[in-house]
Amino acid sequence: MKTSFYSILYPVMTKSLEALSGVLSKAAADAEAHKSTRLNYEEWFLNDRLIYNQMGLARQVQIATDNAKNSIKRLTGADVPSFEDSETTFAQLQERIAKTIDLLKAVKPEDVNDKEDVRVSLPYWDGKSLSGYEYATEYLLPNFFFHVTTAYAIIRKNGVAIGKSDFIGPLPLK
Amino acid sequence: MKTSFYSILYPVMTKSLEALSGVLSKAAADAEAHKSTRLNYEEWFLNDRLIYNQMGLARQVQIATDNAKNSIKRLTGADVPSFEDSETTFAQLQERIAKTIDLLKAVKPEDVNDKEDVRVSLPYWDGKSLSGYEYATEYLLPNFFFHVTTAYAIIRKNGVAIGKSDFIGPLPLK
Repeated sequence: MKTSFYSILYPVMTKSLEALSGVLSKAAADAEAHKSTRLNYEEWFLNDRLIYNQMGLARQVQIATDNAKNSIKRLTGADVPSFEDSETTFAQLQERIAKTIDLLKAVKPEDVNDKEDVRVSLPYWDGKSLSGYEYATEYLLPNFFFHVTTAYAIIRKNGVAIGKSDFIGPLPLK
Repeated sequence: MKTSFYSILYPVMTKSLEALSGVLSKAAADAEAHKSTRLNYEEWFLNDRLIYNQMGLARQVQIATDNAKNSIKRLTGADVPSFEDSETTFAQLQERIAKTIDLLKAVKPEDVNDKEDVRVSLPYWDGKSLSGYEYATEYLLPNFFFHVTTAYAIIRKNGVAIGKSDFIGPLPLK
């Protein structure tokens, strides 16, 4: 694959969400193995956070998937479904990730490659905007990776045996 | 700016390291304001980690800067200086970031834009390699953002008043 506006966004975010799905599977298995039936362990894990005033694990996954999904609408104008942000189980978060990946995979290079100069505005930007390219490279990708990494961090600090390769995913080494 | 192999790497990593420098400045100021002179607060902060078996703050910054700096050699073949990984103060980490930014800013688009098909091999890849493009999008950028975000996370969980905008940096909103 070569560098294009499409290729630096949709294949990259798809791969990262696939890796996140694997990380969440390991977290769910670890939690299941170590659960106490007297504690609502799944709800607590999904609400756990690095510090009291930062968002919790489920919310990190919700925002990462929203970043990815909503970029399609912001760049191409195509409608994308809203998600309800009501996930309270690992299985529901997996479903959200799977739906997001389906949407990302449905994006075609030609839908995106000429969108570097569209104007993109977010609700909290006070009517101001960025170019599609600025939005993608200065906001979307850093923000997306921020939330995927923070989800990983919350899982990691709960002692789940994950490592960097779980975050990166398989590499096409030859 | 338009999408190119150069533009998705060097301006993006430069901006992120500038933001990381700001985050570290806030951490240093907070630590200075709340220090106990009986405790070696700076050394402890730079060694703090999210969990006992993950790398600490200084190491996260060292790896992020190494990822960025070493990509120049890996993609273009140009020599880059080695850093000693001996930083024990916030000021020394800032110096390392500044040196890295200087190296990134010295990269010219024409040095990188034709390097998508070079083969890149890392010591722990057992003699195997990725294309320059695969290395950049599947390893370099995710890994770079992973370590910048983890540095942020360690600082955040120590109660320093930083938010997402400190991580993202200024946006060219119009």
